[in-house]
Parts: sequence; structure tokens; C-alpha cells
Amino acid sequence: MTLTYFLLFLAASAAAAATGIIFKPGEWYVGLKKPGFTPPNWVFPVAWTYLYVSVAYAAARVAGVEGSQIALALFAVQIALNTLWTPVFFGAHRLGMGMTVLVCLWAAVVAMMLAFFRFDLIAGLLVIPYLAWLSLASALNFRVWRDNRS
Amino acid sequence: MTLTYFLLFLAASAAAAATGIIFKPGEWYVGLKKPGFTPPNWVFPVAWTYLYVSVAYAAARVAGVEGSQIALALFAVQIALNTLWTPVFFGAHRLGMGMTVLVCLWAAVVAMMLAFFRFDLIAGLLVIPYLAWLSLASALNFRVWRDNRS
Repeated sequence: MTLTYFLLFLAASAAAAATGIIFKPGEWYVGLKKPGFTPPNWVFPVAWTYLYVSVAYAAARVAGVEGSQIALALFAVQIALNTLWTPVFFGAHRLGMGMTVLVCLWAAVVAMMLAFFRFDLIAGLLVIPYLAWLSLASALNFRVWRDNRS
Repeated sequence: MTLTYFLLFLAASAAAAATGIIFKPGEWYVGLKKPGFTPPNWVFPVAWTYLYVSVAYAAARVAGVEGSQIALALFAVQIALNTLWTPVFFGAHRLGMGMTVLVCLWAAVVAMMLAFFRFDLIAGLLVIPYLAWLSLASALNFRVWRDNRS
């Protein structure tokens, strides 16, 4: 059953990941003023792949625990917001709205992490790198937004 | 507790709905060859608003039933795919890929509907209009894809 859950959460994550394949950074992103802490391009797909797989696994662990519905509802919120961010930023080039989406996503992931901790310690721990990455992404989105108003 | 669930599933749906505000049909859509059964533009936001709210309510009903985790995992899959479709179609103008996303979404919603029926009759029934609408959207996406290859 945990495998079924893992595959379902992975499928949801794959939908989010697909946005990164369809809406690539491209010329527009290269031309933006970016802060010194911007990771090199290759880091992004590597980090996201790890995060999608590990959080899907964490959610599958939680799904097996009785009464964990609230944690899965929060997973649904964050995966929808995650799917939304890339098209907003890289597709529509809406930096300010991207920031809004990221703040909502960050809050949803904090809530999901707390819920995961309640049902499964390892699952909660697995969300920490995701939250750390989103914090970096938020700082990056904020600086890119602030430094590229024209 | 059902209200909390409802608000969470509504938040996930709002992320999906936001794509419709950010990626509007516009000139490009107006210029496409469309089949006779294409609904007028005003029908889309009305239909989607009803569907998002009613399916969020259905999911909240199911979330209150013991052992319903599988149904919520399927909700997460469909809401991520739902969020993906609009940017792919109206943002990237990728009609073939939009079709692929819709077929996956349709399958995920069938699975979710069956799971909802297992836990709550009304919740299952509430998904039927969503499935009907996705069937129409699939037919529409397919015809637009077929009739606008250039």
C-alpha cells in the first residue's frame, strides 16, 4: 500500500516537475540581474528531483498512519502551489506574483511539515530540505523581483 | 474539522484556478479554428468555479471518513494535473501536450471518483459533473489540436 501511495504522490509531483521542462529559464532568465547566491543552473533540476522524490516518499509514509488526512490535504495544497509557481515566474514572467505564490507555498510546506512530524518523525525530517530550498528560492525570487523592475 | 478540510481543498483549487486568471485565452485562442460545440467564453469561469468549490466540498466530506487517505492522494494528483493544464495550453500553446495532460487528468478524476464513492455517496456524485466537463474539455482540446496544425 505504501508503494501505491508513493507512486500517487510521485505522479502529483511529476505534474509539478513537468512545468520545469515546459517553462525553461531561457534567454529572459539569463538577462536578469541575479544575486551572488544564485545557484548554477544545473543545481535546480538535481535539487528538485531529490525533493520531489523524498517528499513523495514522506507523504506515502504518513498516508499509512491512521487519521493522517489533514497531512495529505496539506500535501495537496503545496503540490498545487508548487505546480503554479514555475509557469507564473518562467512562463508569464510575473516576478511579483511569483513571490506571492512562493510565500503561500512556503507557509503550506511549514504546515505540512508540522503535520508530517505529528504522524511520522522521518517524514517530518524529510520535509526540512524542501523548506530550506524554498527559503532560498524565496530569497532569490525576491531579489530578482526587486533588482529587475523596469 | 470538515470546514478546515474544505478550506484546504479550496486553497489547493484556488492555486489551480489562478492559472485561468494569469493565462487568459487572448488573441491566440480567438484565432484558433474551434469546433461547433465550443461553449461561449463566459461558461468556462462559471463552470470551473462551481466545479472547484463542489469538488473541494466533496473531498472535505471524504476526508472525515476513516481510512480515506487513498482518496486524498488521488485528489492531490488531479489538482496538480489541473494546475498544469492551463499554462501548457494557454501559456505555452502546446496543444498536443495539453491533450496528454488532460488524458492523465481525466484518468486521475475517474480514479478519485471511484474512491470518493467508496467513502461517501454524495462526494462521489459531486465528482460526476467534473468528469463530464473534463470529457467536453478533452474533446475540445483534441479538435483544436487536430484542426490547428500548421
